Amino acid sequence: MTTGTAEAGARGAADTRTRLLDTALRLFTEHGVEGTSLQMIADALGVTKAAVYYHFKAKDEITEAVTEPALRELDAIVTEASKQRRRGAQIDHLLAGFIDLVVRHRALVALFSSDPGVARAVEKSIHGSEDFKQGLLGLLCGDNPDTAAMVTAHVALAGLAMAGGSPAMAALDDETLREALLEVGRRLLGRPRHRTA
Amino acid sequence: MTTGTAEAGARGAADTRTRLLDTALRLFTEHGVEGTSLQMIADALGVTKAAVYYHFKAKDEITEAVTEPALRELDAIVTEASKQRRRGAQIDHLLAGFIDLVVRHRALVALFSSDPGVARAVEKSIHGSEDFKQGLLGLLCGDNPDTAAMVTAHVALAGLAMAGGSPAMAALDDETLREALLEVGRRLLGRPRHRTA
Repeated sequence: MTTGTAEAGARGAADTRTRLLDTALRLFTEHGVEGTSLQMIADALGVTKAAVYYHFKAKDEITEAVTEPALRELDAIVTEASKQRRRGAQIDHLLAGFIDLVVRHRALVALFSSDPGVARAVEKSIHGSEDFKQGLLGLLCGDNPDTAAMVTAHVALAGLAMAGGSPAMAALDDETLREALLEVGRRLLGRPRHRTA
Repeated sequence: MTTGTAEAGARGAADTRTRLLDTALRLFTEHGVEGTSLQMIADALGVTKAAVYYHFKAKDEITEAVTEPALRELDAIVTEASKQRRRGAQIDHLLAGFIDLVVRHRALVALFSSDPGVARAVEKSIHGSEDFKQGLLGLLCGDNPDTAAMVTAHVALAGLAMAGGSPAMAALDDETLREALLEVGRRLLGRPRHRTA
């Protein structure tokens, strides 16, 4: 096998993995994680179950792989936001990043908020650990938050995610939804009105 | 059988039904709807499975019965709110009623937002129909709402419910949680600050 062929093979495998995850997310959305089998994923892709097994040994691994990129992005947003000097800049960075993530991963967010299989996959990943959630909330409400700040942060994160993933918003393009969520999020967190460039 | 005995029997059956639903909600919270069997409910109550069958023929009926009182209350809140003359009063009535409901039924709300079994039961009930949801949203955002109003209403309803049902709020007493949610909700919907009596 020449290097060229090996590279083409690796690229082919990467493509199949991407297609597999896209297909899995679509089937999870239609049938739930519980209601989706490896066989259904194979059928939808037009490949054998063995070909699916080549990439993932169990459905759990697929569920984790589906959520993994978004969680890694969220991790990066929290890290980047925490590097900002001023509290206001931290909140602005986190809010804009979180909303952008929700909008781009709408299907996954909708699934996360309605399917315990996905919620469990997130809990099991290092990104979904309690520490990570605390980091996200801590950045939003600061050290030693009072009740009002804690409640506000929870309403903001859950509300923005659920609204963004709602089928009622499916007709909105990404930019419109992003601007609307940002406006609401900034009002909620007491940040000055966002000015678009 | 005397009337007195028949009444006592009816009261006993009503008590068993209430205990059964309380126990079912607790088990649903611990194991999910899928992970809870009629046998588990019977065991937890210390009765036979036949005794459970006397009240409910299937788990679906229990799930519906668990959610029913809260949905009936929500229905009454929407009806009452829609009778208010001014828009502001409609929103105030709906917001206060919705938050009070979320706080009093915290365990159920947490379950609803994490378990598709409960979400399906609500969808199937007449209260959970699309019309009902539209009524709730319609009251919050008025006729022909723009994107901003729709997004705000979704963030408010989902965010307040998810935050109220969050385990992070378990330590707060009802009154403290109610006041904090009301404050956030009013800011979100552009209502003047709430004054406690």
